[in-house]
Amino acid sequence: MFMRNSWYAAAWNHELGDTPFARTLLNEPVVLYRNSDGAPVALEDRCCHRSLPLSQGRVNGDLLQCGYHGLTFDATGTCVLVPGQTTVPPDARVKSYPVVERHQWIWIWMGDPELADDALIPDWRWMDHPDWRTIKGDPTFYLQCNYQLVTDNLLDLSHLSFVHETTIGTAAVVKFPITTSRAEDRVFMTRWILDSPAPAMYLDFLRHNVPGYDGNVDRWQIVETSLPANSDVFVGCAVAGSGSPDGDFSQGIQFHNLNSVTPETETTCHYFYAHARYFGQDDKKLDEIYRVGFRDVFMEDVRVFNAQQINHDRFPQRHEVDINTDGPGMNIRRMLEQRIAAEAAN
Amino acid sequence: MFMRNSWYAAAWNHELGDTPFARTLLNEPVVLYRNSDGAPVALEDRCCHRSLPLSQGRVNGDLLQCGYHGLTFDATGTCVLVPGQTTVPPDARVKSYPVVERHQWIWIWMGDPELADDALIPDWRWMDHPDWRTIKGDPTFYLQCNYQLVTDNLLDLSHLSFVHETTIGTAAVVKFPITTSRAEDRVFMTRWILDSPAPAMYLDFLRHNVPGYDGNVDRWQIVETSLPANSDVFVGCAVAGSGSPDGDFSQGIQFHNLNSVTPETETTCHYFYAHARYFGQDDKKLDEIYRVGFRDVFMEDVRVFNAQQINHDRFPQRHEVDINTDGPGMNIRRMLEQRIAAEAAN
Amino acid sequence: MFMRNSWYAAAWNHELGDTPFARTLLNEPVVLYRNSDGAPVALEDRCCHRSLPLSQGRVNGDLLQCGYHGLTFDATGTCVLVPGQTTVPPDARVKSYPVVERHQWIWIWMGDPELADDALIPDWRWMDHPDWRTIKGDPTFYLQCNYQLVTDNLLDLSHLSFVHETTIGTAAVVKFPITTSRAEDRVFMTRWILDSPAPAMYLDFLRHNVPGYDGNVDRWQIVETSLPANSDVFVGCAVAGSGSPDGDFSQGIQFHNLNSVTPETETTCHYFYAHARYFGQDDKKLDEIYRVGFRDVFMEDVRVFNAQQINHDRFPQRHEVDINTDGPGMNIRRMLEQRIAAEAAN
Repeated sequence: MFMRNSWYAAAWNHELGDTPFARTLLNEPVVLYRNSDGAPVALEDRCCHRSLPLSQGRVNGDLLQCGYHGLTFDATGTCVLVPGQTTVPPDARVKSYPVVERHQWIWIWMGDPELADDALIPDWRWMDHPDWRTIKGDPTFYLQCNYQLVTDNLLDLSHLSFVHETTIGTAAVVKFPITTSRAEDRVFMTRWILDSPAPAMYLDFLRHNVPGYDGNVDRWQIVETSLPANSDVFVGCAVAGSGSPDGDFSQGIQFHNLNSVTPETETTCHYFYAHARYFGQDDKKLDEIYRVGFRDVFMEDVRVFNAQQINHDRFPQRHEVDINTDGPGMNIRRMLEQRIAAEAAN
Repeated sequence: MFMRNSWYAAAWNHELGDTPFARTLLNEPVVLYRNSDGAPVALEDRCCHRSLPLSQGRVNGDLLQCGYHGLTFDATGTCVLVPGQTTVPPDARVKSYPVVERHQWIWIWMGDPELADDALIPDWRWMDHPDWRTIKGDPTFYLQCNYQLVTDNLLDLSHLSFVHETTIGTAAVVKFPITTSRAEDRVFMTRWILDSPAPAMYLDFLRHNVPGYDGNVDRWQIVETSLPANSDVFVGCAVAGSGSPDGDFSQGIQFHNLNSVTPETETTCHYFYAHARYFGQDDKKLDEIYRVGFRDVFMEDVRVFNAQQINHDRFPQRHEVDINTDGPGMNIRRMLEQRIAAEAAN
Repeated sequence: MFMRNSWYAAAWNHELGDTPFARTLLNEPVVLYRNSDGAPVALEDRCCHRSLPLSQGRVNGDLLQCGYHGLTFDATGTCVLVPGQTTVPPDARVKSYPVVERHQWIWIWMGDPELADDALIPDWRWMDHPDWRTIKGDPTFYLQCNYQLVTDNLLDLSHLSFVHETTIGTAAVVKFPITTSRAEDRVFMTRWILDSPAPAMYLDFLRHNVPGYDGNVDRWQIVETSLPANSDVFVGCAVAGSGSPDGDFSQGIQFHNLNSVTPETETTCHYFYAHARYFGQDDKKLDEIYRVGFRDVFMEDVRVFNAQQINHDRFPQRHEVDINTDGPGMNIRRMLEQRIAAEAAN
């Protein structure tokens, strides 16, 4: 049902501490905590003895103790203590998951631990690069929909004209064509709007880096989605003709909207996102725009996702008509299906 | 499961305007709106592209535009525009339903559109006849029960003695026998209580038309239920011996309680009702009695319906004992079963 | 699914009066009331006519009248009146259950009435013995868990060290071994903590009966659980060496915590309990400790039960590791399984 051999965002770094933190991921209850040196640990959130969630227990140094009868587990999930007896039953263990803290998120590997290679975690260096200003989308959105609906949305920004028409949308976006390309585990959607007037908000942003500018701009929307549901939405604009299509952003402003969606179940998900910008890094007003304004924008999408899911529940498997801008989303869906099928075949 | 080739009440006339209105009918999500000349339109409430309910979109003149990517549909359900591209996929269409506005309700045909004949809509002329005073039961009751429980109730007024004993019930009602008759698609339940003292409320009503009257009355309860779940509860009383059994109501007062119940699912329904009276048409206090007092009475029934449904859910298909007054209700249930079976056989 | 030939606690004695009282037991809706001489009656909570719960009707002397059409039933469940007709259909009856009021509880027999022998009701004489002071756990706890989780808990008091560590638990308890014994329909768990310092609360209690005592005590936890889910948790302490292990409690204090758990469904239950103590019978402060303090303690268990059930629902039938203290609970589970299997085989 899900691609398992993959890293998923499990939590924000600040959500973990020395009290157990519970979250269900890919239908599995997981408890997360930090051990005595601050390293994140993830175990199955079910004591192997009488099924109490271990998240109702307590962290003792590097160990997690169940809150019912005191069985105590180490970071590998091995039970190391049963109060009241001197031996530990050999089958007393819970599942342990590889976890890595990177780019402000805690990433968890839900599949075969032998295959957990942290080089596969998305390289979202902007999240903690000192030259960029990052605003966390916090707290995490809990969505009542299948996680793939979010990826569809991010890969088809033509929805801005309708869902976000009163916020960030403009009727113009949909008029410019997109190009799609794909690599082994990812899809790129690119739209360039060259030598055109900038929307008011963009012009305002641009003046942080190019003071007083009032001319046409080259704008881009470049979305890179890697399996299973990680999307880097790279957008911005630059002085028209200043070289941004060739990678020179010196006369422009850029921001990366970074998104990772982790299924809770087939019909619910955790949606993590952050914004990293390369302009007005010290501007508190901009922080508010990214913190509050974009949250409102995302809430417009949430309303769409939840409503779509109601119709999907009603009419599972029913045919949907495709249009031109669906290409990137359909590509990533197909890749994901193939990976899931390949995992099932092994 | 439901009789489909039939008109159902979908909405009150005042519920529809130039913003889309959503209601689930017979397990199908429907969106209703008025086009530019005020005519009602009903479409399936699911965009054929990415399943967003069209009710989250907007009405543009005669067209309905999806709120996600802007696909636009006409009143026949045909997609006439896909923003960002010049052609429309040939399978881009949603289901359209015949609708008719009549007697203050919007009626929808849920079956084969070829068979939609508006002569089949109940002839409830009292609803908008200038000589009658109509009070709408508004807002619509949303019931947590199968719609047929409401028809059972309306066809067996012996429940007044128990459910409504502190409001409109009298112990006497149940002592008078009923007669049952049937036509092809309807059942009539008739009870006459001749030459008897009138209950206080009825005497009060009667004096609007026969001032000062204090004698015995002839009372009637005549319920006509047509398929699938439309009930005209015609009740009143007249000066005893003044000819009401033969159709002369000049020395009496009459009112029609008009009811239409539309299934949402097997276990939930929308209950539409109105009261039309032929006495005290300008009496505001009577309006309040019909608006508020009868709503309270109906709430006593709602409590019964919801509790019955709990036991039906618990014991589906379990045998129920029948008593004498169940005749009319059992007749309409049998007719309905036959129609549903006949539709399934086609 | 459940053992049916058995008495279950259905209600507190004070919950029953001359208005019908509804409770679902073993998946069956039951209505309870007292007849004109105060004797409890239990009938199926579904009118055999149109399925309205009889608990929405009214008690008329010894009879229960349905609130929809007035069908009236006697204590055997026989319909004795159908308003509006002179005869009663021969199949108009509802199920009647044997009920007995004893030890402040109403006990109901859910199986074959022929086998209902009131000698099988737990002999919990302390509940209404004049020498003992009883505090009712009232209102009844409604738990979102399978009823057997409560029995597991009561038969393994080692959980006190973890679940109740800030209330009644002590780290010491788990260090003393238990002995288990069984009879045909019951299990005994016994733990003696001999010649040891008493916890502060126990010493305080003991001084009611042995003023000023400050030495070591002999403490006991003796739990007797009989099928299906009745547990007498007999605990206390006495002056060390004064003979309590041999049954002489004259230099000690004793209390019985009496528990009966009645399934509502497979995953919900009604939890009845009371405390009877043989010390400080007139001490109002002790009453408060038993009424409020122990309720808080039980709420700590409730949190565990509900969380266990979530994992049981998630992973039905999944293996659980057993530890030494699980012996008594596993014994009673096995007995119960055998009884249920035996009933199914008949």
